Amino acid sequence: MNTGNLFAALPRDLYEETFEHLAGRGEVLIERIVSTGQCTPVGDWYDQDGPEWVALLAGEARLGFDDGSTLTLRPGDYADIPAHCRHRVEWTAPDTETIWLAVHY
Amino acid sequence: MNTGNLFAALPRDLYEETFEHLAGRGEVLIERIVSTGQCTPVGDWYDQDGPEWVALLAGEARLGFDDGSTLTLRPGDYADIPAHCRHRVEWTAPDTETIWLAVHY
Repeated sequence: MNTGNLFAALPRDLYEETFEHLAGRGEVLIERIVSTGQCTPVGDWYDQDGPEWVALLAGEARLGFDDGSTLTLRPGDYADIPAHCRHRVEWTAPDTETIWLAVHY
Repeated sequence: MNTGNLFAALPRDLYEETFEHLAGRGEVLIERIVSTGQCTPVGDWYDQDGPEWVALLAGEARLGFDDGSTLTLRPGDYADIPAHCRHRVEWTAPDTETIWLAVHY
């Protein structure tokens, strides 16, 4: 059985945002994302065919949506992002690891 | 967009274990479970048609499997339980809320 800890074994190379596959099958993907100040390049958007449920477990981040609204996420905060809801990561805390749990379903 | 916080709005009635649907579609279900000392009745087993990825976010718990093995979970610990892997919750901390995030997929 695959086991682990969401707060452990953080990637050493924090220059890049890291995406780690934890579980999934078919179109379902459960992943941990670790950010350290990265954000989505200006003008780029995530526009996904399926919904994404995302929770922030550590750190802090701000999502932006193409209607101009934003959503600040602190530990424990989650959002269920519908398919084709264009969004981007506007900001992540520069001085700590921000740990996300994302479920694409 | 449905948003919330995994550590907030804990159920007031903690006599029963509570299961809250957070997101999902089709066979995918993302839920928060809050336990306060409850466990699976002796002799009962979870035996599920699909896999379940479960993470413990607060508190402490111990899972038992029908090969006699156990797995203690502390905050951040996760396990990807295969379909038809018979398991039960042997113990949850009696003096605090144990918060689980479960993804049935």
